[in-house]
Amino acid sequence: MDAEWQHQHIENHDDFLGLTVNSGIEQPESFSSESVTRFLSRKRKALLSVDEYVRGILEGNITVLSQAVTLVESSKKEHQIIAQDIILKCLPYSGKSLRIGITGVPGVGKSTFIEAFGKFLTNQGRRLAVLAIDPSSERSRGSILGDKTRMEELAADPHAYIRPSPSAGSLGGVARKTRETVILCEAAGFDTVFIETVGVGQSETVVHSMVDFFLLLMLAGAGDELQGIKRGIMEMADVIAINKADGDNIHKAELARVQYKNAMHLFPTADSGWTPQVFTCSAYAKTGLEQVWSAINDYTKLTGDNGYFRYKRSEQARFWMFETINDRLKSDFYLNPVIKAALPDFEEKVQREEISPFSAATQLLENYYHL
Amino acid sequence: MDAEWQHQHIENHDDFLGLTVNSGIEQPESFSSESVTRFLSRKRKALLSVDEYVRGILEGNITVLSQAVTLVESSKKEHQIIAQDIILKCLPYSGKSLRIGITGVPGVGKSTFIEAFGKFLTNQGRRLAVLAIDPSSERSRGSILGDKTRMEELAADPHAYIRPSPSAGSLGGVARKTRETVILCEAAGFDTVFIETVGVGQSETVVHSMVDFFLLLMLAGAGDELQGIKRGIMEMADVIAINKADGDNIHKAELARVQYKNAMHLFPTADSGWTPQVFTCSAYAKTGLEQVWSAINDYTKLTGDNGYFRYKRSEQARFWMFETINDRLKSDFYLNPVIKAALPDFEEKVQREEISPFSAATQLLENYYHL
Repeated sequence: MDAEWQHQHIENHDDFLGLTVNSGIEQPESFSSESVTRFLSRKRKALLSVDEYVRGILEGNITVLSQAVTLVESSKKEHQIIAQDIILKCLPYSGKSLRIGITGVPGVGKSTFIEAFGKFLTNQGRRLAVLAIDPSSERSRGSILGDKTRMEELAADPHAYIRPSPSAGSLGGVARKTRETVILCEAAGFDTVFIETVGVGQSETVVHSMVDFFLLLMLAGAGDELQGIKRGIMEMADVIAINKADGDNIHKAELARVQYKNAMHLFPTADSGWTPQVFTCSAYAKTGLEQVWSAINDYTKLTGDNGYFRYKRSEQARFWMFETINDRLKSDFYLNPVIKAALPDFEEKVQREEISPFSAATQLLENYYHL
Repeated sequence: MDAEWQHQHIENHDDFLGLTVNSGIEQPESFSSESVTRFLSRKRKALLSVDEYVRGILEGNITVLSQAVTLVESSKKEHQIIAQDIILKCLPYSGKSLRIGITGVPGVGKSTFIEAFGKFLTNQGRRLAVLAIDPSSERSRGSILGDKTRMEELAADPHAYIRPSPSAGSLGGVARKTRETVILCEAAGFDTVFIETVGVGQSETVVHSMVDFFLLLMLAGAGDELQGIKRGIMEMADVIAINKADGDNIHKAELARVQYKNAMHLFPTADSGWTPQVFTCSAYAKTGLEQVWSAINDYTKLTGDNGYFRYKRSEQARFWMFETINDRLKSDFYLNPVIKAALPDFEEKVQREEISPFSAATQLLENYYHL
């Protein structure tokens, strides 16, 4: 029986109980550097100076923006140095967009929604960047690129910029890259940023910590579809949109809306002072999009007036500084060869309750500090 | 307006967005060591050898158990060495209790509930240890001791052992001590352990990571009372008990029960395979306690059969090893005098968006490693 649980949960063991265990460990110099190097060597002759990158970005040159994002995503030290310099110089021009997190399990119609909602916004003259956080794409390479192909209209829209998730790496690493890409996109004049993720793991918490507004897509029916959504995610949502409210499904979706609306009332009040809203919509029939957008505007107005919007932004920046430090402290420890060799044995003993977790930790730390 | 937010949230800034920022930092050699030293010097003549402690604990000697717990709570290195040795020797005799987390905001009637439910269990021949995690007791010293005084009947019960929360310290530190106290209590023959906490902060997540079953106490009325409960806590509950279902309140409590029951259906299924239950109860009238207990037994049976109970225990042990390591890595960094001096300036610059969080982190880490 235990074996069954082990099997079912093996992929999730890093976020057991919603808490991070031994995660956020970036493998430096390994992931995706191959493709980055290939890309950069192809472009080598075209490599620009930091000032040229910055100028290009500020002029809204998408080719230059893309090249700079590739540097941000690179794990090579020399690329990182240039990237950090570009970011530093773009910072004063960033921060002016509305950052919207969009999540929902596979099957909820996320790419169709993003395409429809994105077009709705660019038609109003907004400039939209679509980014993604999907650490799982390491396993299923191309899944987000697949989405891009499906977002044909938006991909062809000159007012939209779609950038697939950094192709692999730890959640912490991917998150950092996405966060820095937001800065570059804002400096390039994008006034709306979508950060999409799949509602099945820890990535929502990470997205939540870098956006102003969090939109959860759901389907009608409280049954099977829901099982993919992780606990705790519903309570992060500023708006729940029940998608696919079209055709025969309209009545079911409306019922679901009422149910969720009632349930949301039982939730504790959010720090923002905002009461989460529930709508139905159809990305396919392009209905309900105005409602979602109008709720986002109401939210922005409310939190602008009560100071929460700016408060959240500055706390997020602070949070990311600490996250980066803590990630590095951990990765330096866990990637140390001595620790790597000793850890599995300690883990086993702790799980078998042969030693206490505290005493195992103390012994490992002593090994580390006395190297 | 920002000032208002800063003010309201200053006490919570460590768990902004439900994520830990710069927390879990134990101040070694400082907190509560004064009272511990006073206690131990009073008892100095009576200090036992490790084997005497262990023997006393295994015999169920409450005085010896209390002394050992005091060593666990001490931040003195020499006490910690003895404590770890005692824990190691008690480990083989531990693990056999049912560990129940109990939470609810102040005013929900938690101590009355614990007294009534505790008596209900000891009357059935169970031996009960009541522990608490309340990092806030640093500020409001004596609050839990106050509870103990209020739990008069239980405190006088020879089958119950009530231990107040370690009086101060970081959440990580307090949690570690409570977790190790559980081991000692189990070795002393307690077959049921309550770990209580106040439903207003991060401590629930910590309690959730060290118990088998999580009980949330609520009040009827979805209004003001709820605002104190942090988001995400409801979704952790295995049972919600709506307390004070007595007198004029019975009807209101029953209504609330139905509402919560419906809302719980919308939640994602728990990994345990258990469907959270909602009951009404009255600690005052001593009603509904059998239902809660019977649900706990159903849960234990279900998760015993499907393997989740043991799986969760072993993952918790593993989790605590990593937590302890990560806490130490962080405290070594953040308590370093050079970092302590440099950090506030970087924090401000990051919040004002003058430098990127990543670049601030990198600079601080370089300072640290090149000391």
